[in-house]
Amino acid sequence: MNPTRGAVGGTDPRPAAVVLLSGGLDSATVLAIANQQGFACHALSFRYGQRHEVELAAARRVASALGVVRHVVVDIDLGVFGGSALTDPTIAVPAAGTAEEIPVTYVPARNTIFLSFGLALAETAGAWDVFIGASSVDYSGYPDCRPEYLAAYQAMANLATKATVSGERTLSVHAPLMHLSKADTIRLGLSLGVDYGLTHSCYDPGPDGRPCGRCDSCSLRERGFTEVGVPDPAGG
Amino acid sequence: MNPTRGAVGGTDPRPAAVVLLSGGLDSATVLAIANQQGFACHALSFRYGQRHEVELAAARRVASALGVVRHVVVDIDLGVFGGSALTDPTIAVPAAGTAEEIPVTYVPARNTIFLSFGLALAETAGAWDVFIGASSVDYSGYPDCRPEYLAAYQAMANLATKATVSGERTLSVHAPLMHLSKADTIRLGLSLGVDYGLTHSCYDPGPDGRPCGRCDSCSLRERGFTEVGVPDPAGG
Repeated sequence: MNPTRGAVGGTDPRPAAVVLLSGGLDSATVLAIANQQGFACHALSFRYGQRHEVELAAARRVASALGVVRHVVVDIDLGVFGGSALTDPTIAVPAAGTAEEIPVTYVPARNTIFLSFGLALAETAGAWDVFIGASSVDYSGYPDCRPEYLAAYQAMANLATKATVSGERTLSVHAPLMHLSKADTIRLGLSLGVDYGLTHSCYDPGPDGRPCGRCDSCSLRERGFTEVGVPDPAGG
Repeated sequence: MNPTRGAVGGTDPRPAAVVLLSGGLDSATVLAIANQQGFACHALSFRYGQRHEVELAAARRVASALGVVRHVVVDIDLGVFGGSALTDPTIAVPAAGTAEEIPVTYVPARNTIFLSFGLALAETAGAWDVFIGASSVDYSGYPDCRPEYLAAYQAMANLATKATVSGERTLSVHAPLMHLSKADTIRLGLSLGVDYGLTHSCYDPGPDGRPCGRCDSCSLRERGFTEVGVPDPAGG
């Protein structure tokens, strides 16, 4: 409705925050939360060689619908390292529940890389708050979604930048979904007016961008909407 | 001389290490140290919108001369954030000693971003050791070159990846130059056979790639060679 509420370095009186925005259900909810908390949000998305680039179109729709100060898309090539079904076309995306403990959809150091760009953006935007949609409930078992990881990241970040070492303020990494089930996340997002029809969760969409309905991410999403008792407006 | 000592996933019996290689004097020395310690080195360089892209040519020369298992160059666009004289053509590179406490050549979260890609490469290469040329002596005052920062990074990294959370082993971030002056670094590198004529340090080279002779990096390099009492083979 109001995609640009303020200009970079402009007169927006709200404190700036960086929100990692994938275009999925979780990060859309996090953006709504940060907005509701009164932050002027700088959304940050990545084109990282993922199979599901349809995510980025969803991120743009979500950023526009919920309102952000700006939306930065950074190109990074995680594919050069290989090792993940999300970036390596030779590795198949498994069906939900069939994977090993940490599944092949895990991308090495992904959240660490994403948060590090978030840290850079926070410094240049004058933001002291970085939001990420990590959750340790109903998640895929990725190590970089756990609270102890994020606490260690925040400790490191506060030693890392010109802004944080000034001692003036400390940077906070917020994961407001950390202890919410997928259903709780959906309930919260609906209460904040998130249109989940704009979001995309599937790891392995068809050529038309439609969700596969069988990967971990589709499965978690479907279970969430079923538990809430509302249909998934994205038709997942 | 022997640019490819082993193949990825091949029969190289040496443990793998990741070495961040900028093409400068420090990282060339670090690569020589890691080689001498018996590691099979995976060199990692970045094309990050820096003014001094001649660095990358130097990184390729150094990797080839000292010998690496492979040399990965990752494209990342730090320029989208602005805020540094190294990536923003509208900010002048200052002469040495004229800058504020943390100079405008500081790139927001640069080492955090570089190490995070290093962490990803370490995981896919099966490496437990990441080397970086950071030093807290004769340096430009960047917060992400200090030992407390690197210790916090290592703590975070050990919670971040599938490999590190297995509990099998811990990942180490090595900064073997941390407590060395530039002159000590040069002495060590010379004793290991580093050809500093292949390296490039200047933040603001001319169109022909020649060092400016006046930036912080040129100045530190010149003082180092003067202290050692040998000419800079790069003619800096």
